Amino acid sequence: MTSKIVDVHTHVYPPQYVSILKKRTKVPYVRDTEPGKPSRLIILPGEDDPSSESTAKGRPIGSEYYDINKKIEFMNLHGIDISVISLANPWLDFLEPDEAGSIAIEVNDAINDMCDSYKGRLFAFGALPLSAPTTVIASEVERISKLKYTRGVIMGTGGLGKGLDDAELDPVYKALEETGMTIFLHPHYGLPKEVFGPRAAEYGHVLPLALGFPLETTIAISRMILSGVFDRFPKLSVLLAHSGGTLPFLAGRLESCILHDAHYSGPQAATSSRRKIWDILKTNILLDAVVYSELGIRAAVTASGADRVLFGTDHPFFPPLETNSEEEEKWLSVTTNYKAIQDAFGPEKEQAEAVLGGNAIRLLRLATD
Amino acid sequence: MTSKIVDVHTHVYPPQYVSILKKRTKVPYVRDTEPGKPSRLIILPGEDDPSSESTAKGRPIGSEYYDINKKIEFMNLHGIDISVISLANPWLDFLEPDEAGSIAIEVNDAINDMCDSYKGRLFAFGALPLSAPTTVIASEVERISKLKYTRGVIMGTGGLGKGLDDAELDPVYKALEETGMTIFLHPHYGLPKEVFGPRAAEYGHVLPLALGFPLETTIAISRMILSGVFDRFPKLSVLLAHSGGTLPFLAGRLESCILHDAHYSGPQAATSSRRKIWDILKTNILLDAVVYSELGIRAAVTASGADRVLFGTDHPFFPPLETNSEEEEKWLSVTTNYKAIQDAFGPEKEQAEAVLGGNAIRLLRLATD
Repeated sequence: MTSKIVDVHTHVYPPQYVSILKKRTKVPYVRDTEPGKPSRLIILPGEDDPSSESTAKGRPIGSEYYDINKKIEFMNLHGIDISVISLANPWLDFLEPDEAGSIAIEVNDAINDMCDSYKGRLFAFGALPLSAPTTVIASEVERISKLKYTRGVIMGTGGLGKGLDDAELDPVYKALEETGMTIFLHPHYGLPKEVFGPRAAEYGHVLPLALGFPLETTIAISRMILSGVFDRFPKLSVLLAHSGGTLPFLAGRLESCILHDAHYSGPQAATSSRRKIWDILKTNILLDAVVYSELGIRAAVTASGADRVLFGTDHPFFPPLETNSEEEEKWLSVTTNYKAIQDAFGPEKEQAEAVLGGNAIRLLRLATD
Repeated sequence: MTSKIVDVHTHVYPPQYVSILKKRTKVPYVRDTEPGKPSRLIILPGEDDPSSESTAKGRPIGSEYYDINKKIEFMNLHGIDISVISLANPWLDFLEPDEAGSIAIEVNDAINDMCDSYKGRLFAFGALPLSAPTTVIASEVERISKLKYTRGVIMGTGGLGKGLDDAELDPVYKALEETGMTIFLHPHYGLPKEVFGPRAAEYGHVLPLALGFPLETTIAISRMILSGVFDRFPKLSVLLAHSGGTLPFLAGRLESCILHDAHYSGPQAATSSRRKIWDILKTNILLDAVVYSELGIRAAVTASGADRVLFGTDHPFFPPLETNSEEEEKWLSVTTNYKAIQDAFGPEKEQAEAVLGGNAIRLLRLATD
């Protein structure tokens, strides 16, 4: 059997979800522009600047965002055997509490059905109705854990509104742990724009996307660790987007600061009988390989192990800047990550194959035969 | 000649500076508490909570903060031959414009004099009067570049108030480049406290120190890169605290986001004829080795080269939690970084020696014979 390539970081907006966004007039929303031009998606508050040219606001949302056939074409072009698709941000976070539960059912079923239309090629992370009561959220975890192709849930960093270190999330974590569903923790909210300074707009989306996103992820998982989530739920599994944000690089400093903080502040709950971050990294955390450098892959593998790093693409985001209409070309964002994995392992082909697919098949139970 | 150990990240508040802080009543300031107890230093806005117990506010400022003999004792205990001392944050950022120039002269001379009192054991990074007009700042660069022991300047991320990507800093960068003075870029302001969530206080100083500091550094250096500072000043030398914050780990993503951003925002100035981040990392940037993990050292070395990573301690911060009064014990924060370097290089002793001291002696011109 040749080894398979699995993409664990690949997004979709099912048509049902796009139609919800089309009915909205504030972020997040989708708006039609000129006839014949693609609709535009405005998901970040910064993209909703009323002073910007109306047609350039947000990003064009082509069929690659909602047509699952385009996902399969992308997979075929890049040699990807299996994709674990997930709703893209901002997921269901913005829904009213009384509608969130039913819309979650509709969207999760739609994504699971997409998988069924390409049996064996597609699996899914569902999305949770986080604005609904926790009993509703936990029920949806239970329900989707029984869907044929759903293996976890994608979550942002907001939780119920107070972050992922909120003890009120415990029933949700409990349901996820008990059903063996992996959390795919993904950024969306970034950092307050002041931190990028008065010239940030001159740099386009670079600072919020390149730094804001991974820093948001790092803060969120650190808060989970400090609040003892992994002490209370020692089998909880969390896949971190973008190779953990920056957690692998900062784990040493974080561990050191925890050890030294009692000097200034008195003993902290976080410092007593807690699990070490290095242990959590190797036990509870999975890291995707969407880090765009050999250095990053090596750090991710050192942090969590070559058996816990998983290839991803971030499709349909980061398309090529220039496309040649004559022939389809591979995406730079994808080939950069492929190359980073090949370079990181060199002749260690078995480890590269594990990262490219074997780990995902084993950890997310994707075997179909 | 046996190889020497050099600490490039080690702070001091000379008595002249402490007396300035004692006269102040708002952050930053030093206040005396009970007789016989050390004064307390309040340098972060978060430490000035009026509701906290008055005696516990801020951190105790013992003689290790201002007595240079204590620095030498610390060096002797840890086998450190040479220290490149620098004023600790918040440096001179808070001074009134009309006093900043003369206070800078007083403080920089005091630090240089400290070095003279232990010839060959101490060198220095000066501090700049950044609230003064740029002509005054540039003059102080020129002046301290001629001091016997001063090899660069420590700077925060605020610049003249608009960050380090502010074109008004160009005369300062020009003076630094021309005099061959290294900028030691060090965090202080962190991130807005909201990003750490409503439970942050329960985790003591862990989140601001472990994450806020390195993220601040990462954003600051990224803004310098995007604004073309290193294109305009190709010989500018910048030593990044804490192994670059997270720059080594995020360099790939940052480079990728620059390459992909024109798709959404139209071509950016930052994307045309700019130098690649990987090139800047290996040409302009030095990284200290204060990262508390083998993983971090390896990433730093991959990013900037084994000839551009420099041992540091962050003394007098991060002292041991419990000290044994019977005998002096080495500091965990220091031994953690020593061990990380040893583990990262294994039998490659020459590279370890370079990181421990040889690089600093060569790059900062510390040879005294």
